[in-house]
Amino acid sequence: MRRNPERRAALLDAAIEVLADDGARGLTFRSVDRRAGVPAGTASNYFANREEILTQAGERVYERLVPDEAVLAAGLAGPRDRAKLAELMHEVVERVAAFPAGFLALLELRLEATRRPELREVLTRRVRADLDANTGYHEQSGLPGDSTAVVSLWLALNWLILERLTLPDLFTPEQRHALVVALVDRLTGQPQP
Amino acid sequence: MRRNPERRAALLDAAIEVLADDGARGLTFRSVDRRAGVPAGTASNYFANREEILTQAGERVYERLVPDEAVLAAGLAGPRDRAKLAELMHEVVERVAAFPAGFLALLELRLEATRRPELREVLTRRVRADLDANTGYHEQSGLPGDSTAVVSLWLALNWLILERLTLPDLFTPEQRHALVVALVDRLTGQPQP
Repeated sequence: MRRNPERRAALLDAAIEVLADDGARGLTFRSVDRRAGVPAGTASNYFANREEILTQAGERVYERLVPDEAVLAAGLAGPRDRAKLAELMHEVVERVAAFPAGFLALLELRLEATRRPELREVLTRRVRADLDANTGYHEQSGLPGDSTAVVSLWLALNWLILERLTLPDLFTPEQRHALVVALVDRLTGQPQP
Repeated sequence: MRRNPERRAALLDAAIEVLADDGARGLTFRSVDRRAGVPAGTASNYFANREEILTQAGERVYERLVPDEAVLAAGLAGPRDRAKLAELMHEVVERVAAFPAGFLALLELRLEATRRPELREVLTRRVRADLDANTGYHEQSGLPGDSTAVVSLWLALNWLILERLTLPDLFTPEQRHALVVALVDRLTGQPQP
């Protein structure tokens, strides 16, 4: 297996584009080489088989979505109230939606996982790690809301991003914004004594 | 175009299975005929083109998910409190998840809609009608929660169903049950004065 990390990353980025555009069925060594603009046979020097491309492409999406240190630090600066949490949630939604191929590729991988138990296992571990990281970051931050709030926000915001990317006219940007604020307010709400 | 409604419905049910199993790219007149177990050429007597099958298959999923009159009536019987709303939400989740091919076919159609503006328009209208129906039913029912609560529940429960169907081991059945209860409690909560 070849080891040039930039080349490997470029091949996985091409695989993400192929997944988003053509689905898992469109993903072959050949289509990845073509999309990456590299000589035929390159991808097969980096990945043992198609399954490896599928799982590593999923991993690569998460890698590309990791926020900057600056963004993470900003979440821990200043007052840790609902307004700050809403601001962070807007930032997450924008960050994920700004990489539509990544989100759509993960959806295609999920659909493919219904047919491939091994891929399902890898994705389950990856999604669980993402959820645990979210929950851990949240607890550490002192922002309002318990772990149920974090998971609930994650569910609702994922589908909101799905709507935005697949049926962008269902909600206006203002409606989406208001929904994020309402979700934060209600899900982190502590019933007053 | 042929007009036998049972035959048309059977062809659309076959199209839903093809979409769930093979994605939109796998959907052809031929694959629908084959899945429905009818002579080659049958689907082309019922649908003018592939696009018509795609949009009508989406419509057919919603048609098959309409609850029984008995279920609708039950929602309006007895105390209209959060426990009742949670019970109804559990019922919706079970009903949708019990027809996995329908949910997965709609996801495939959404992904295909990112490439086909006409399909996107049809799906947007259909999803909006579904959301409006949910909101209307809810308001009429006198159950707790405003329209923001209904839309928020719809977002979160859709992604919960997506998890259950694509990565079924991410949450245990107990965790999913507890999430539905928490979502209802928090999203319909009125902050105390």
